[in-house]
Amino acid sequence: MKPLAVLNKAINQQVIVELKGKRGYRGILDGYDPHMNLVLRNAEEIHDNDVRRKLDSIIVRGDNVIYISP
Amino acid sequence: MKPLAVLNKAINQQVIVELKGKRGYRGILDGYDPHMNLVLRNAEEIHDNDVRRKLDSIIVRGDNVIYISP
Amino acid sequence: MKPLAVLNKAINQQVIVELKGKRGYRGILDGYDPHMNLVLRNAEEIHDNDVRRKLDSIIVRGDNVIYISP
Amino acid sequence: MKPLAVLNKAINQQVIVELKGKRGYRGILDGYDPHMNLVLRNAEEIHDNDVRRKLDSIIVRGDNVIYISP
Amino acid sequence: MKPLAVLNKAINQQVIVELKGKRGYRGILDGYDPHMNLVLRNAEEIHDNDVRRKLDSIIVRGDNVIYISP
Amino acid sequence: MKPLAVLNKAINQQVIVELKGKRGYRGILDGYDPHMNLVLRNAEEIHDNDVRRKLDSIIVRGDNVIYISP
Amino acid sequence: MKPLAVLNKAINQQVIVELKGKRGYRGILDGYDPHMNLVLRNAEEIHDNDVRRKLDSIIVRGDNVIYISP
Repeated sequence: MKPLAVLNKAINQQVIVELKGKRGYRGILDGYDPHMNLVLRNAEEIHDNDVRRKLDSIIVRGDNVIYISP
Repeated sequence: MKPLAVLNKAINQQVIVELKGKRGYRGILDGYDPHMNLVLRNAEEIHDNDVRRKLDSIIVRGDNVIYISP
Repeated sequence: MKPLAVLNKAINQQVIVELKGKRGYRGILDGYDPHMNLVLRNAEEIHDNDVRRKLDSIIVRGDNVIYISP
Repeated sequence: MKPLAVLNKAINQQVIVELKGKRGYRGILDGYDPHMNLVLRNAEEIHDNDVRRKLDSIIVRGDNVIYISP
Repeated sequence: MKPLAVLNKAINQQVIVELKGKRGYRGILDGYDPHMNLVLRNAEEIHDNDVRRKLDSIIVRGDNVIYISP
Repeated sequence: MKPLAVLNKAINQQVIVELKGKRGYRGILDGYDPHMNLVLRNAEEIHDNDVRRKLDSIIVRGDNVIYISP
Repeated sequence: MKPLAVLNKAINQQVIVELKGKRGYRGILDGYDPHMNLVLRNAEEIHDNDVRRKLDSIIVRGDNVIYISP
């Protein structure tokens, strides 16, 4: 199953997104594009297992992504 | 909803833009392009929750963006 | 044998993926695309030979990859 | 208003250009291209609010730009 | 002789691959593509002249390569 | 005036080229291409205002350039 | 004279290649491509003016190049 097909299946589900620079986000996947730019809603920013910030909706730029876990 | 569609809906609304290198901007989204280059008006530059600078209008280059929160 | 052909042959087999920044993943290769974005299932994140995290399924962005070993 | 349209309107006006690596430039915008490569005339290089160097004309490569403020 | 032609001639021969971040690999070149992604078999990972790891087969992503020596 | 047009006008004139990593070059611009790869003749490498090296001719790769001053 | 034309003229001549990360190579230019990937024969790796390694033939990936001096 190709990476973008896996992302497509994860729409409306909770995902964990790990970014370069020790940042992580957890939220409901609302959308994506082929660059792996992502839209998350009800997002939480996580550093070292602590929730740092809550954001109703964020667009994460794909080139920061290390992995996405549906 | 795709990332650029979310940006389009945020036109004329306040957004938070987090950049690489611990910089953040808050301002009214005035425009964008497919590279996520952004135009903000009434922008404030924020470091560690302090407003550092006010700028009537800025063009932020998309490749510095970590996330945009409408 | 070209790199993507080797990846294709490794589908459904265990692979080791070494990323920039001292991260490694071990899991079953479920999919890939020409950017070397990868889908792993039953994945384990490894730092310095220790399993740090288990993840049912992850999409790893190709531009972080140093090598993949089938 | 799209980012390049804002740049176009700023031609012959003073702009501030903030680059990666704590460098800034102030000058009259003389030209640009779609990569955000810029031509400034009567430019001043600024580090920590000090003018470091004056340059009649410079071509700034776009991939160093963080933001441009007209 | 163009770089990819030299790689082509090195197929089935031992090569040394030096990567960014002080990593090196030695192995038999099994394949490559125009991005300089490489397939090595009977590969050895080398740090500071010590063999650190042996790998039957690896796919090295081209954008980490500094040089390849046939 | 677009960036490449300014470069074109500077052919056969002395330019200063500032690169990432605190390197600078001074020399006669002999040629360029759209990536801002440059050819300089009678070039001097400059670190902290000292001439470090003289080179009859160099090709500077464009992606290292911060600015070029004709 | 355009950068690639200068490279073409340097075929079969000795060149100095300076890379990011304080590495340099000296050798006979055997080939190149438009990405500035280079083939050198009778190459010497140089750090701080010392010859560190001799290599019959190397393919240097263009994106590491700072400058090439024919």
